[in-house]
Amino acid sequence: MGQLDIYKEPLLLLTDLYQLTMSYGYWKCGRSEDLAVFNLFFRKTPFKGGYAVACGLEVAIDYLKNFEFSKSDIEYLATLKGNDEKVLFEKNFLSYLEEMKFECDIDAVPEGTVVFPNEPLIRVKGPIIQCQILETFLLNSINFQTLVATKAARIATATQGEPVLEFGLRRAQGIDGAIAASRSAYIGGCSATSNVYAGKILGIPVKGTHAHSWVMSFDTEEQAFEAYAEAMPNNCVFLVDTYDTINGVKQAVEMGKKLRAKGHEMVGVRLDSGDLAMLSIEARKILDENGFEKAAVVASNDLDEWLAQSLKMQGAKINIWGIGTKLVTAYDQPALGGVYKLAALKREGEDWKYKVKLSEQAIKVSNPGVQQVLRFEKNNQYIGDMVINENEKPSDYVMINNLDQTKKHKFDQSTKVTEILEPIFRQGECVYQEPTIQEIQQRAKDQLGMFQAGVKRFENPQQYPVGLEVGLNQLKRDLMEKARQGGV
Amino acid sequence: MGQLDIYKEPLLLLTDLYQLTMSYGYWKCGRSEDLAVFNLFFRKTPFKGGYAVACGLEVAIDYLKNFEFSKSDIEYLATLKGNDEKVLFEKNFLSYLEEMKFECDIDAVPEGTVVFPNEPLIRVKGPIIQCQILETFLLNSINFQTLVATKAARIATATQGEPVLEFGLRRAQGIDGAIAASRSAYIGGCSATSNVYAGKILGIPVKGTHAHSWVMSFDTEEQAFEAYAEAMPNNCVFLVDTYDTINGVKQAVEMGKKLRAKGHEMVGVRLDSGDLAMLSIEARKILDENGFEKAAVVASNDLDEWLAQSLKMQGAKINIWGIGTKLVTAYDQPALGGVYKLAALKREGEDWKYKVKLSEQAIKVSNPGVQQVLRFEKNNQYIGDMVINENEKPSDYVMINNLDQTKKHKFDQSTKVTEILEPIFRQGECVYQEPTIQEIQQRAKDQLGMFQAGVKRFENPQQYPVGLEVGLNQLKRDLMEKARQGGV
Repeated sequence: MGQLDIYKEPLLLLTDLYQLTMSYGYWKCGRSEDLAVFNLFFRKTPFKGGYAVACGLEVAIDYLKNFEFSKSDIEYLATLKGNDEKVLFEKNFLSYLEEMKFECDIDAVPEGTVVFPNEPLIRVKGPIIQCQILETFLLNSINFQTLVATKAARIATATQGEPVLEFGLRRAQGIDGAIAASRSAYIGGCSATSNVYAGKILGIPVKGTHAHSWVMSFDTEEQAFEAYAEAMPNNCVFLVDTYDTINGVKQAVEMGKKLRAKGHEMVGVRLDSGDLAMLSIEARKILDENGFEKAAVVASNDLDEWLAQSLKMQGAKINIWGIGTKLVTAYDQPALGGVYKLAALKREGEDWKYKVKLSEQAIKVSNPGVQQVLRFEKNNQYIGDMVINENEKPSDYVMINNLDQTKKHKFDQSTKVTEILEPIFRQGECVYQEPTIQEIQQRAKDQLGMFQAGVKRFENPQQYPVGLEVGLNQLKRDLMEKARQGGV
Repeated sequence: MGQLDIYKEPLLLLTDLYQLTMSYGYWKCGRSEDLAVFNLFFRKTPFKGGYAVACGLEVAIDYLKNFEFSKSDIEYLATLKGNDEKVLFEKNFLSYLEEMKFECDIDAVPEGTVVFPNEPLIRVKGPIIQCQILETFLLNSINFQTLVATKAARIATATQGEPVLEFGLRRAQGIDGAIAASRSAYIGGCSATSNVYAGKILGIPVKGTHAHSWVMSFDTEEQAFEAYAEAMPNNCVFLVDTYDTINGVKQAVEMGKKLRAKGHEMVGVRLDSGDLAMLSIEARKILDENGFEKAAVVASNDLDEWLAQSLKMQGAKINIWGIGTKLVTAYDQPALGGVYKLAALKREGEDWKYKVKLSEQAIKVSNPGVQQVLRFEKNNQYIGDMVINENEKPSDYVMINNLDQTKKHKFDQSTKVTEILEPIFRQGECVYQEPTIQEIQQRAKDQLGMFQAGVKRFENPQQYPVGLEVGLNQLKRDLMEKARQGGV
């Protein structure tokens, strides 16, 4: 069961109105058979980091498999009006939408792939109307899920492999803001979620024990722990900071002894406030002194990768990290600025024409072409990514660095090379064997292991080399020149 | 049709696992008939502002009306295991959940009400198990929607009543992150959304014309505008910055003249990049000189209330504001820290006991009691809010200010006073007549008009007086003292 199965109907109206007005425009001027190529990419890595972890494709695939307007969608569109109170869309166009069959070719980097600025994460080739309608949904799913998967990967780096639990449901941005976040966080490296619904529909492990209200609802903390241990002897992480944390740890130890006498092991204690560095060290000491070396210290309280890194540096004795708000909302940068730009166009009866979108900043000019990304590997490490135009495959591996146009990289012809975009749809049919969420999580982990540590550090990360193949770079320059002279 | 109608099944599993483990604990120790009172509130206004606009109740009501576990939910819960690989929940408990009927009393402030820190937005009274299970969903919907409604109200303040269009779908946090944001943004003061799905299911006006890709897909900008005007003469806002903005405005004017000759009026031009202050002034001049005084200048590009305020101060001639990412993700503070705290408990056969949750910071200690908020009004302005304990209605209107415990406010007995929490559910039955989204939007506007301008300013807003009734304040102090001595 996938994330989109929870919705009753196809979500084709989950698009910006201008996608439909443009579609109407193309249809009206007889251009509905024009073919286009669009690329979805981002221009800056999130969180000032060195990389991103691609995520959100599965949801996009489910959406594309159900690429059709429902009867009620069409009825709704028929009610829309222009500024003269006359209808916006004529009936024949709505019939056209109703009968439209998905025909696009889609290529994409598999989820869990480490990606960089100005590389296409998704490439869409097909009738321009379909390319437009699907734009907004693709951006919605890829932008957010890539953001959270990246955040989770950073947090997992900071905890140095110690388990991270995602606790964000209550502060997430809406229902699906939570479900999609649970999914992406797991892919990026979390071990489990507190979100039971995400557990059910996505197969993510779920974790949780009790809250402060449990303790407050008994006359004493001791009674609260005792009752919990009675009820769930096999799931005891005691929350110890309702009244006094150190006292709480001591109470937990007492309860741990009683549990052990009955053949159960206390799983651990949880700290949710106060000085987590100091308290975790104290808690560890008390647990160890009492023979609970294996009991975990779980910590939570507005943590993120920066705080986790700082706690590690302070020698905090935390074994399991509960991370909510800062992870599921990607608090310090709650949106990835992914965009979707026209890169090539084939009008009926004409040849392909390549396209660039100008901008005042050179780095913001989009890349033309039917793009593929070649990733080069040497000694089990990735050493650079080169964007090529599939229509003009190069004989030589020479690229111009995106960030420093004076830097040319020449990759040895013998270097191991992978095309990172894979075929997902061909003429509207899904041709992709979807991996399980566990496989995607593993892919992210494996990929991250293939990059130098400097790419993954938080402060001034190393700039992994990404660029355009020289020929494609020249094509771009030529198109920019033409476009500056007004239109293509 | 409401926001939750798009889901196939009830969303009762959309909760933290610990709500279910605690429920199991209460059930196991024979406390499933205990009654509790919980309050949902936030401790700090978002965006360092002076107020928040309550939002998210409708979704919560829909959720509560379907408060039941599906068969597949129960089947899933039966698969969960503890650390010894034995099941977490015994069968009789799952049957109990399956047969559970919603019995809570819920009181809440209607959506669109202006609210302040430490006031209950929702009060839940009922069997403790049900109070726990619904906690996470309530927080999810109220936290996010209140955040975005507040952001939208701030933006509408900055644009001084000029229309704001919400364009955030592509950068929103997931599907429902977008839908819920469109809804809340409209309630907070937006005029329309680009999100067609939100338009369909929530009845929000939708707006949009064309993108850069439309212009790029033609040989010249002139041809692009011409084709658009042919197709949709009654919906022409021309995007003028694909190549050169000022040239684009001139092209739009030429097309406007052609439209007019055919009996149509150009709606306006849209700027999406560059110096919006300078370009909007230039665009306005060109439009006016050519007889298009009524054509609007629409501007967008990562705007928020701060930029809108700054553009206004610079004399920008913008008539319609397109705002996306910064609004729908509440970019500068993407989560409201709403919490849900136990305030009273009635164990079977005992009297009500009041509860506080301690904290190292006095301001973070939760308030006890079955709370209601009295809002005092004088000369058509609100002058203060007092939280009372409904079980001990005061004879006198004296309160201690939350932020300054040395400040006593005494409200005249003749002052007009309103109880801001209204009955929503009684013994599990909805007793609330739900307003339309347009009525909610109007309520927010009316309410905001009742507060002094200083409460609504962005920098150092005026602190609207909120406090506890003296008797309740004393009860809180006494309970804190007791709790510090360990347990209640």
